Amino acid sequence: MMSDRPEYLLYCMAQSGNAYRVALMLNLIGADWKPVFVDFFVAGETRTEKFRTEINEMGEVPVLDHAGRKFSQSAVCLTYLAKRSGKFQPEGEDEELECLGPYRFLKNFAPAPSPAGEAFLLNRLGISLPIVDKRLAKSPYLLGSRPTIADVSLAGYLYYPAEEFGFDIAKDHPHIGAWMDRIKALPGWKHPYELMPGYPLKRA
Amino acid sequence: MMSDRPEYLLYCMAQSGNAYRVALMLNLIGADWKPVFVDFFVAGETRTEKFRTEINEMGEVPVLDHAGRKFSQSAVCLTYLAKRSGKFQPEGEDEELECLGPYRFLKNFAPAPSPAGEAFLLNRLGISLPIVDKRLAKSPYLLGSRPTIADVSLAGYLYYPAEEFGFDIAKDHPHIGAWMDRIKALPGWKHPYELMPGYPLKRA
Repeated sequence: MMSDRPEYLLYCMAQSGNAYRVALMLNLIGADWKPVFVDFFVAGETRTEKFRTEINEMGEVPVLDHAGRKFSQSAVCLTYLAKRSGKFQPEGEDEELECLGPYRFLKNFAPAPSPAGEAFLLNRLGISLPIVDKRLAKSPYLLGSRPTIADVSLAGYLYYPAEEFGFDIAKDHPHIGAWMDRIKALPGWKHPYELMPGYPLKRA
Repeated sequence: MMSDRPEYLLYCMAQSGNAYRVALMLNLIGADWKPVFVDFFVAGETRTEKFRTEINEMGEVPVLDHAGRKFSQSAVCLTYLAKRSGKFQPEGEDEELECLGPYRFLKNFAPAPSPAGEAFLLNRLGISLPIVDKRLAKSPYLLGSRPTIADVSLAGYLYYPAEEFGFDIAKDHPHIGAWMDRIKALPGWKHPYELMPGYPLKRA
């Protein structure tokens, strides 16, 4: 009988500010959630074998349980809840280019062609690519002088071949192009088709 | 026999830019990882019952498996890997106040007093609180005109009672104080001691 179980459980205790971040987020997005008290200070419950085995091997709160999937670390929990709820999400340059993935999909892999869909996304790209280009004219990386996960995220679709887009992003937007060269020069960088299996695509 | 298993597995396919974000991050941080090919385009593998049950109920890649714990959504995976590796982390105002938690712990809950530790953290707070205050003088919320998870994260330790810190953050730093009032006015806001169990603390 799981029917009375709320959508989210949060393993927490009142004195933990890290736990409070997630508790507050759950409340702000109006989630269906309940706290589960973990007695860290008095009973040292988070360090017990039982807690480590069943809840979080790192022996820490908060732990967010969503239908049995467990997340630790408040930043991870906040990102997860923001993505799922669509609330309190930061708007970034990353988001600006979110239509790059769907556009490439429609153009190359969709079961049926959708010229209207492609035109819509291409129009949005025509607005957002210059915004990102302008941003990257100001600093070498999105958040300043060193690369962060914001850059890794932005890299998602940019290295796929120009023919999959029908235009050359690096050529048309020189600051994006220069940023792409900088990311490419990081130790460990590889092209998506080198890094992940499944290329070339073999259709059945 | 799990000894040959790498630390991370990434369920992915070469054509997915969302998967590439995580694959690239794993490579950039020098992680011990291997890709597991998921055949979305040809076999529709991510939509099968088996994949949904065993890997990701949302039927999507990427899925990051760390010692059996599974994470989906590229932003969640990137945040997790940045936290664990300490690499590619954004430096934020949030980070500026990271010593607030340890300071409050030492002052109130630590088993043995540590005046040197307290003094060190208090000195760092004396530098970082004005930085955050200055930042919040420029815009109502950390990233601009609306609250995001950056604000939720910053809220972690700020609402605990002034006596637990020995100083009144809101009074001493008026822009932080005004921001605290704005966050407090959001529907769903509650104080940590109202939102989570375990207060007042009952020592055994």
